[in-house]
Amino acid sequence: MNELEFINLAKRSLSAVSPCGDGIGDDCAVMPAGDGRVTVVTTDMLAEGVHFRLSTAPAYTVGWKALAVNLSDVASMGVRPVASFMAIARPDGLSDRWYEEFLNGYRALSERFGVPLMGGDTTASESGLTVCVTAIGEGEVSHVKRRSAALPGDIIMTSGTLGDSAAGLSLAESGSARYPELLRAHLSLVPQVSEGEWLGGRCQVHAMTDISDGIAKDLEQICSMSDTGARVELTRLPISDSLRGYCSEEETDPVVPAVCGGEDFKLLFTVDEAGADTLVSDFEARFGYAPRPIGCIVAGSGVEWLRDGASVNEKFQGYIHR
Amino acid sequence: MNELEFINLAKRSLSAVSPCGDGIGDDCAVMPAGDGRVTVVTTDMLAEGVHFRLSTAPAYTVGWKALAVNLSDVASMGVRPVASFMAIARPDGLSDRWYEEFLNGYRALSERFGVPLMGGDTTASESGLTVCVTAIGEGEVSHVKRRSAALPGDIIMTSGTLGDSAAGLSLAESGSARYPELLRAHLSLVPQVSEGEWLGGRCQVHAMTDISDGIAKDLEQICSMSDTGARVELTRLPISDSLRGYCSEEETDPVVPAVCGGEDFKLLFTVDEAGADTLVSDFEARFGYAPRPIGCIVAGSGVEWLRDGASVNEKFQGYIHR
Repeated sequence: MNELEFINLAKRSLSAVSPCGDGIGDDCAVMPAGDGRVTVVTTDMLAEGVHFRLSTAPAYTVGWKALAVNLSDVASMGVRPVASFMAIARPDGLSDRWYEEFLNGYRALSERFGVPLMGGDTTASESGLTVCVTAIGEGEVSHVKRRSAALPGDIIMTSGTLGDSAAGLSLAESGSARYPELLRAHLSLVPQVSEGEWLGGRCQVHAMTDISDGIAKDLEQICSMSDTGARVELTRLPISDSLRGYCSEEETDPVVPAVCGGEDFKLLFTVDEAGADTLVSDFEARFGYAPRPIGCIVAGSGVEWLRDGASVNEKFQGYIHR
Repeated sequence: MNELEFINLAKRSLSAVSPCGDGIGDDCAVMPAGDGRVTVVTTDMLAEGVHFRLSTAPAYTVGWKALAVNLSDVASMGVRPVASFMAIARPDGLSDRWYEEFLNGYRALSERFGVPLMGGDTTASESGLTVCVTAIGEGEVSHVKRRSAALPGDIIMTSGTLGDSAAGLSLAESGSARYPELLRAHLSLVPQVSEGEWLGGRCQVHAMTDISDGIAKDLEQICSMSDTGARVELTRLPISDSLRGYCSEEETDPVVPAVCGGEDFKLLFTVDEAGADTLVSDFEARFGYAPRPIGCIVAGSGVEWLRDGASVNEKFQGYIHR
């Protein structure tokens, strides 16, 4: 069975036990804590050969990324990450130096956002390296942003450029050192921890998720969970000069990685139309750059892609994990 | 570097970020929640070829065990497990039927203790099957039992027979169907969730842990973290008739698996001497069996093993994980 079939089977199998909160299908589970607060929890596993190759990914970036993807999930709920846990299955043959660098990468990101490692587990591995990180977040129950909260009329925004990480992956795999800023977007993604917590405190923000599989897939999930449709204007997608330069050399359309590329880890959120201008200017005053409106939520279902206002007859597919 | 060296390096590397709670070195991390309550978190990874072999472990028991070891960790803190999260790396070649049985085992234990699966992650694996479960517990801050809380004079108790699981592992590996109750102790361990929560509510109980690596190792950890020593009377260890029978056939001493065997997952706890008799009778009234006093905490360090009151000159070593 494939990934989706396994997930659906797990959901069906285990639905008999009543949940103590909600969040199945969201970036994190949300559990009530005392005093009107919530605890959110997410867990992500990185497997050698699937998420990274030891031949191309430096140890430092594997440690960094293992934590980064989890902090991004917590941020996308609108709350602050407060602790992480790391379980690791370690094969024979990796050097002490490798593990030191791995931990250096994990530590650098822990320190950057003040998120302590509170525990974990280690085991031998008979095969590849596997790292599983769990992150815990805390915040006000009223700040939690769910994928399911988009409303028709909302403006859809992203908090940064799209597609850089996908191009960086191609560059890393080809061993190229061109466009170091694209490589960095892939290897040293910075989860938008501060932006996520700040957006959590804004009542104009309705739905939010992080962009892990490309907006084609992540926006589709917001739509299906909110029971809405969406319209996206492709000419408004924030695309970096580096990605434009790289795609021009490769003679490809930068819109494709911007819509379908994996692991951007920017935030994708919907904002009440009446409060959108204020939100953009307040965000820019706080973070020094503005989130970009790329479309709007509409009644109906599915995502309609427009170019200069005209519907394009193209089916974009988000990043497919194996 | 070996497991201990990696853990020590991780602790040193990551100590710069102040923790949001405590529990490093305990069965779970303990984080303050609102209203005088705590959230506890534990994560455990099972790797194919290390913790189980697909050739000998039925899928049902792999799913059961992946959750069981985590629920045992939460129980040993004196609080109630409230949620679990499962991350799984899935290799090619396992049948749909295998995953169904795996989830059936996970579900059976989830239902038994009413602990919902609240989320997780799935990925492909280029090599073996790896399962990482995170469990969350909640309880009163005053109920939390730490390994570090033993006091000289405390009575040391265990909540069940010791060594059965280690013998069951030997039987499973040899393909024997003798002593099914020992096999069951290994394959279908029942974490002492109710006992743990109940003991958490008793102020006479000082330190507690679950017995995952044999009391030689687990009691040594209580001693080193509490800055105490311990004396254990080997003739008082609770040893099942099955284990006696099996060891008699094998011409081995049942004390060895009882002291050094892994994965018993009973509770090991220390009790204020003045309240010990009351605790034993209240426990028996509640659960239908009595915990067994096996020794006492003393000033000093290390564990002294006695046989009929006389010190035995034997060094027991707990179960060594790879």
